[in-house]
Amino acid sequence: MPDVKQSRSPYRIRPRIRVLRNQDIVIGPGKADLLEAIGRTSKLRDASKELGMSYMRAWSLVRTMNRTFRRPLVKAERGGAHHGRAVLTPTGRAVLALYREMESSSLEAVKSAWGRLRRLLAK
Amino acid sequence: MPDVKQSRSPYRIRPRIRVLRNQDIVIGPGKADLLEAIGRTSKLRDASKELGMSYMRAWSLVRTMNRTFRRPLVKAERGGAHHGRAVLTPTGRAVLALYREMESSSLEAVKSAWGRLRRLLAK
Repeated sequence: MPDVKQSRSPYRIRPRIRVLRNQDIVIGPGKADLLEAIGRTSKLRDASKELGMSYMRAWSLVRTMNRTFRRPLVKAERGGAHHGRAVLTPTGRAVLALYREMESSSLEAVKSAWGRLRRLLAK
Repeated sequence: MPDVKQSRSPYRIRPRIRVLRNQDIVIGPGKADLLEAIGRTSKLRDASKELGMSYMRAWSLVRTMNRTFRRPLVKAERGGAHHGRAVLTPTGRAVLALYREMESSSLEAVKSAWGRLRRLLAK
């Protein structure tokens, strides 16, 4: 999600949401972007390239997410006719949508205080 | 600000707000905690110790904040009778309060989607 940047101002605000299980990030900005790129490309390799992430790193994040939710978020095929294909499951699409909803709600919610804080910043 | 942790659940949500100027953090969780510790201790050395931060690092963060806002957030005395004393200015108190307000607003705003996301997480 793009940060909110005021025109002619060098300042912007960036709310970041992370869901943790103990100290591990269950879902945060990086994993959400990966889910989104998988949804767009249907290829784990293309998705990882888009994010400047190694293929093995993307695999590892997908594996972690698939284990942490009740149902897998990504269905990936490593062999057969559709080798390399990766698609978001209904749970994957729901999790991504809820994460984006949290980001937008957060951004909307901070706008009032952010407007007041901006006035205290130097030009 | 403490994360929201549901009882009996290993999961918690952590919204983090950062104000950026280009790639630099103007204020975020670390600087806010430093302001709060300065407000509590009135000593930069005690504040930095509380946060497990070196004294020079704390000085550097204070200098950056003081430069970035229209008016200084922290008034620190490095010599004289009150050597080592550091207090929040009215602007410093206002910035800290607005930052904490953004954190609470964000947390409140994500609760609904977080409730739905939690149901998708494994036990």
